Amino acid sequence: MDTPAISAIQASETAVILLDQRALPQTVTYLTCTDGNDVIEAIRSLAVRGAPAIGIAAAYGLWLFARQALRADDFWSQVQHALTALKSARPTAVNLAWAVDLAYERMRSFAPQDAVLACRQWADSLLAQDITLNQEIGRWGTTLFDGSVRILTHCNTGALATGGYGTALGVIRSLYQAGRLQQVWVDETRPLLQGARLTAWELDQEHIPAQLITDSMAGTVMAQHMVDGVIVGADRIATNGDTANKIGTYTVAVLAAFHQIPFYVAAPLSTFDIAAQSGADIPIELRAADEVRRVGNAQVAPENFPVYNPAFDITPGSLVAAFITEKGIISPPFSENIPRLISKNV
Amino acid sequence: MDTPAISAIQASETAVILLDQRALPQTVTYLTCTDGNDVIEAIRSLAVRGAPAIGIAAAYGLWLFARQALRADDFWSQVQHALTALKSARPTAVNLAWAVDLAYERMRSFAPQDAVLACRQWADSLLAQDITLNQEIGRWGTTLFDGSVRILTHCNTGALATGGYGTALGVIRSLYQAGRLQQVWVDETRPLLQGARLTAWELDQEHIPAQLITDSMAGTVMAQHMVDGVIVGADRIATNGDTANKIGTYTVAVLAAFHQIPFYVAAPLSTFDIAAQSGADIPIELRAADEVRRVGNAQVAPENFPVYNPAFDITPGSLVAAFITEKGIISPPFSENIPRLISKNV
Repeated sequence: MDTPAISAIQASETAVILLDQRALPQTVTYLTCTDGNDVIEAIRSLAVRGAPAIGIAAAYGLWLFARQALRADDFWSQVQHALTALKSARPTAVNLAWAVDLAYERMRSFAPQDAVLACRQWADSLLAQDITLNQEIGRWGTTLFDGSVRILTHCNTGALATGGYGTALGVIRSLYQAGRLQQVWVDETRPLLQGARLTAWELDQEHIPAQLITDSMAGTVMAQHMVDGVIVGADRIATNGDTANKIGTYTVAVLAAFHQIPFYVAAPLSTFDIAAQSGADIPIELRAADEVRRVGNAQVAPENFPVYNPAFDITPGSLVAAFITEKGIISPPFSENIPRLISKNV
Repeated sequence: MDTPAISAIQASETAVILLDQRALPQTVTYLTCTDGNDVIEAIRSLAVRGAPAIGIAAAYGLWLFARQALRADDFWSQVQHALTALKSARPTAVNLAWAVDLAYERMRSFAPQDAVLACRQWADSLLAQDITLNQEIGRWGTTLFDGSVRILTHCNTGALATGGYGTALGVIRSLYQAGRLQQVWVDETRPLLQGARLTAWELDQEHIPAQLITDSMAGTVMAQHMVDGVIVGADRIATNGDTANKIGTYTVAVLAAFHQIPFYVAAPLSTFDIAAQSGADIPIELRAADEVRRVGNAQVAPENFPVYNPAFDITPGSLVAAFITEKGIISPPFSENIPRLISKNV
């Protein structure tokens, strides 16, 4: 049970194999990417999503691009071009840029052939370490709760969103394994329903007790005293604790504050962006209107009706009770404690 | 423009014709009900919905039942049976019980043939008065705002939900007609998407400026200072101001309070239940799990995954800035001012 049998990302000698998350929960299908551009397209179209997972996938994507560049005269300029293309696939999650920038760091002291190998080793190590690191996050997370608890979560932060196990959902898994989880409230997470499609699917696979709600019901279950804590993941965290995460997270944080329920963010240190002093420094991706106007094949709004569709929102650090990282809990004041923990672990 | 060309409910000599709201926005189709049970089924299945509209539809439903009962020996016992069946079609909206109880009051001093006529006249007058009454609500609502405003609304409270014009959406129409509406934010209103399917459709028909958002984005647009006021409808209001309305309303009310945005409830006096002292006295309908697990033909969660699906929630009166009724604005303290306005208008 320690490492669930869900692998969103795998790699062979010549390809990166991604579980196509767009087809869940109906079908488990895999995309075999042999070209770096396949990985970019998989990231853009959300076949692979979740900040840690897209970091890992992007590192493998750089490896594919570098392999292809071996056949060209201008290896390094092609690698740099790939680096830029990968980073612009999705703008909000910092893990993507972090993963490929560090890959490039490890590559550049080598000649092309060995640089490709170094990139692959980095991607492999990211994937392998991510599971261990998430289990550490899970272990730290359990120290925040007493007794048997009911946890509300938003979006998917599980094995599918990471190298395995999960961040916020990793804490939930750890609580369950410790016999201290009464139930999970799963926000369906419109527009793309990562809660209903992915988190519910992961919980269902492991028979973890849970109930699905629409995002608009979160206030009601809190008002009815049925939630002991909220745990979410993050796509980028500024040094003052402002947190970019899936749209709807801010609404949940406000609701939690109103009901005096602790609101926790579970994320690896790689999600903290020391270049961002506050949420104002974090770019927010706007996505297509049809993500809201359509669900599957169903058109649910008039065609061409105007839509506002930010993929993420910013939860101010003031609404976060604590951050759960692989190196421990970060409590307020975040402007002091976030830089301190990060500088200790660079 | 005063009375939009959208008629959710019409009646002929022999039938009640309901716009089938389940097919919107794709198709405008009508259900012709010649049997009272057709009306009950239309109310249960949400072909007709919205507290005022189901009140009117139920009055016509009682007329159909009474017409059928003319052919039986036990006219009054059949009418009473129909009364009970209609009231149990949906439990939360008080307008349903109010409309059929008053219909029965008007019928019972007559012999069967004239009783049927009295019921039909009551239903016709309800329908006709509802439009006028909503225009009064609209007129009062405009007095609450200065300048040109951005209004967020939840669910559908428009021509489709009433005899015509609308309650909360009636206020929005009045603001638009007065040239004082900058734009509407339309919550899509999961699970049944009355905002996306119905409110967006009504606004689209009249070219009223609007943007559709998922319910989870309401907090974000408020945090970005893009909302000047929230107006919603109601299914039942207790004498202390506690308000039952479409699930998600409470979440919006908490968000509005957090952002210091006024939260208004627009409803006719028939929506106030003087028998309910607080929200605890209002029954909340639980609906089928597949309303959340499925959208149209799309399955969006694992089959049989547990779901919590209350159709309504209770917003405490303490979060309501004022009620907008056809007889004026009700401000706090509600426990004094609601009974006072109602006793003046019985």
